[in-house]
Amino acid sequence: MRYAVLGTGQVGRTLGGRLVELGHEVRLGSRTRDNTAAVQWATAAGPGAGVGTFAQAAEFGEVVVNAVGGRVALAALEAAGPDNIGGKILVDVSNPLAFEEGELRLSPVGSDSVGEQIQRAFPRARVVKTLNTVNCRVMVEPDRVPGEHNVFVCGDDPGARERVTALLGEFGWPAGRVLDLGGIRAARAVEMWLPLWAGLFQSFGHGDFNLEVRRSR
Amino acid sequence: MRYAVLGTGQVGRTLGGRLVELGHEVRLGSRTRDNTAAVQWATAAGPGAGVGTFAQAAEFGEVVVNAVGGRVALAALEAAGPDNIGGKILVDVSNPLAFEEGELRLSPVGSDSVGEQIQRAFPRARVVKTLNTVNCRVMVEPDRVPGEHNVFVCGDDPGARERVTALLGEFGWPAGRVLDLGGIRAARAVEMWLPLWAGLFQSFGHGDFNLEVRRSR
Repeated sequence: MRYAVLGTGQVGRTLGGRLVELGHEVRLGSRTRDNTAAVQWATAAGPGAGVGTFAQAAEFGEVVVNAVGGRVALAALEAAGPDNIGGKILVDVSNPLAFEEGELRLSPVGSDSVGEQIQRAFPRARVVKTLNTVNCRVMVEPDRVPGEHNVFVCGDDPGARERVTALLGEFGWPAGRVLDLGGIRAARAVEMWLPLWAGLFQSFGHGDFNLEVRRSR
Repeated sequence: MRYAVLGTGQVGRTLGGRLVELGHEVRLGSRTRDNTAAVQWATAAGPGAGVGTFAQAAEFGEVVVNAVGGRVALAALEAAGPDNIGGKILVDVSNPLAFEEGELRLSPVGSDSVGEQIQRAFPRARVVKTLNTVNCRVMVEPDRVPGEHNVFVCGDDPGARERVTALLGEFGWPAGRVLDLGGIRAARAVEMWLPLWAGLFQSFGHGDFNLEVRRSR
């Protein structure tokens, strides 16, 4: 498959690298064509890895992955271009976190989410929110954390949720550990997990943890 | 010990009933002295159980438990009276959930929480937020859910967090399963878990579930 991964930060490089390892072709997209981090990444990742602008990457990919920060996601996707995104599956792994008044805060929060913002701005795209609840190393290597811990998918297109669940399987998440929360509105719920994630990160001193939902049957 | 449990809904009756079973004396507080639900609860719960106004209950208790809804918590505690609450441990298990525009929403959310509101309004009280992340039946009977699942405590007074951790032990939560998130500011993080809880509740069709934090060591 051909993937566009938008964002050259740790999340984008980690996801892009794993996709290349899995045999996919990846274009890592950034604001400029010759982004140093992207070029270094492509050199190290080897065959299948390439770089480009947000628009070049989005045009190349059959699936588009938003791996820029949640607060700049709409700007990056606008730069990628509505025509290049079209009706493709758009996987959003971002969180709208930033420091405000010395504290890490979400915005939007509560009555909206980045996932929903993206779906409204790109109504033809089949947006699926996933993986935003774990550190990027855990995203592509879930066995870093012991146990049958979970990730979530939500999005308005059931077929797109299934396709993304299959991609999560390639990353090492068995389908039974992927909890389907239904439509994209649930993006606000998974984004609101982040403050508790941040508290646990502070308490543990590392990001190799996740939640396992336990239930009676 | 003598406990005040403020609130005669399912949460208050369940917590109060379990405290009586454990041999404590409980006054279930409500807006009026002769609240029908409270009187029926006290009759069924047996010796050790009593009812009263919010103020009578708070005066009686060595520890005060806020089990009214998060959006009316401040009003109930004002009625209980700052002098009756004084410097006591005030256990807050509430969530500020209500339906708005047909959706279950939190308010406050993000940059504040009910736990923090209560601590600001009653600066002498030693507020500890806990148990708001699970259904009330799971609060007092954690074995309803399989696994080493977790609850959280936070509050500005470390001694009060320890005392509440011991109370959780009486309910069936071993100390190793109680995650200490530090000061009361973390109340916003545990309250923001609720939208995901609600999504899982809708998906499973019951409330007998909880999260287990899994981590590498």
